[in-house]
Amino acid sequence: MSDDKLKVGVVTISDRASSGEYEDKSGPAVSEWLGQALVSEWGTIRKVIPDEQNQIEEVLIYLVDIEKCHLVLTTGGTGPAKRDVTPEATLAIADRVMDGFGERMRSISLKYVPTAILSRQVGVIRKGCLIINLPGQPKAIKETMDELFEAIPYCIDLIGGPYIETDESVVKAFRPKSAIRK
Amino acid sequence: MSDDKLKVGVVTISDRASSGEYEDKSGPAVSEWLGQALVSEWGTIRKVIPDEQNQIEEVLIYLVDIEKCHLVLTTGGTGPAKRDVTPEATLAIADRVMDGFGERMRSISLKYVPTAILSRQVGVIRKGCLIINLPGQPKAIKETMDELFEAIPYCIDLIGGPYIETDESVVKAFRPKSAIRK
Amino acid sequence: MSDDKLKVGVVTISDRASSGEYEDKSGPAVSEWLGQALVSEWGTIRKVIPDEQNQIEEVLIYLVDIEKCHLVLTTGGTGPAKRDVTPEATLAIADRVMDGFGERMRSISLKYVPTAILSRQVGVIRKGCLIINLPGQPKAIKETMDELFEAIPYCIDLIGGPYIETDESVVKAFRPKSAIRK
Repeated sequence: MSDDKLKVGVVTISDRASSGEYEDKSGPAVSEWLGQALVSEWGTIRKVIPDEQNQIEEVLIYLVDIEKCHLVLTTGGTGPAKRDVTPEATLAIADRVMDGFGERMRSISLKYVPTAILSRQVGVIRKGCLIINLPGQPKAIKETMDELFEAIPYCIDLIGGPYIETDESVVKAFRPKSAIRK
Repeated sequence: MSDDKLKVGVVTISDRASSGEYEDKSGPAVSEWLGQALVSEWGTIRKVIPDEQNQIEEVLIYLVDIEKCHLVLTTGGTGPAKRDVTPEATLAIADRVMDGFGERMRSISLKYVPTAILSRQVGVIRKGCLIINLPGQPKAIKETMDELFEAIPYCIDLIGGPYIETDESVVKAFRPKSAIRK
Repeated sequence: MSDDKLKVGVVTISDRASSGEYEDKSGPAVSEWLGQALVSEWGTIRKVIPDEQNQIEEVLIYLVDIEKCHLVLTTGGTGPAKRDVTPEATLAIADRVMDGFGERMRSISLKYVPTAILSRQVGVIRKGCLIINLPGQPKAIKETMDELFEAIPYCIDLIGGPYIETDESVVKAFRPKSAIRK
């Protein structure tokens, strides 16, 4: 575990948002959620890119290898349509896949919509960074993060990142007793 | 989304049914369920083949590439036994895997039997077709379809197939508001 | 299905337990659980090895190919940390992956801790043997086995192993009626 400030990459993946055809509301929704949840220090780097596998891979590699992000959250591009390639790009640059993240995110969203199973979202680790594909809709982003985030601070501990503290009225970071810093 | 009639391939995969050793009850159970659930126009192509990976792959490719099915439902051959090779064949000809389908089908069947976890059934996309490995038992087919099918019409919308309408007393097709045709 | 006595490999995977830095409590917890649950005859082979992928692979291959185990239970090394390589080793020597086991184990542990999703544990088949990655903590081992084991005897039937009988006050082995021996 390091004493660095948490560095989070937030990547909106959308042809229309990246071309300016409409305003990106997903990336801001991710940042807003983090702003409410995090009590320890953090900073963010935001990117808005089209649904192009090569570009997504490049941005993910840049955020992990050059910017040294500890956490990268993507939004968009996880459905079954041809232009949806976020999971392909994420898997292509992954060191290891965390199957539990994809399962859990679909299971959370399934409480709201039966079409949650159509999402191919994944969670992976590249070097010392956890990368997670969030849904595209601001409402679904919040629903997912409210539950999923409980497990993220301990995951970041285990891969060597900074100790994250949260506002427990938003989400409680769960750690085994031996991993809690007083 | 196209205005074609929905074309469904139904493939029974069973050494004993294909040799005539016993009557195929699984394929008919799939067709019967579809007959009760679908309100929009549809047609079906039925195949009964042995548990041979090459033959399964050939039939799946034929149904998607030549017959232009929008949906292919297989039944049988998903267990842990050596002769069970339906998932292997399905994955071998897939363009992309929809992990949520396998997870959801096991989770539905788990409400009935703890051995549901032994099924290796998958859902995949090849070209414009959704291919799903259903269980082999007629009872389990119905249990699965009653819940799983909620998400299938919207999936077929997203991969360019026809707009499916269902009898809501059997199953309600879920779509986000913006995707509902009046 | 054979009439052999059930042979179970129990492998503790831990740098500290294998170096003697601390006492292995996980392997004994697995054996103790089996001792309480199994009514039919069984025997066990125990191994304690470090978190080294090559060594894990060698031990798994030895237990399956040479010792002819019907079931191998590993404990430890399934988390996101760099030294955790049990799933990588297990997948590397697998003939087929049983996705339902990983899903189910995470889903069982999720009732106790939200960080259950961080486990990358898998279940696979190699030849006539079922290999399962259990959690590392004795408490989590028991929680998992109490529920998961319901599906294991029938799985071992299907891959050609001996007929396992359990003490139903610990866990009930589920089998379809046609598979129950009187």
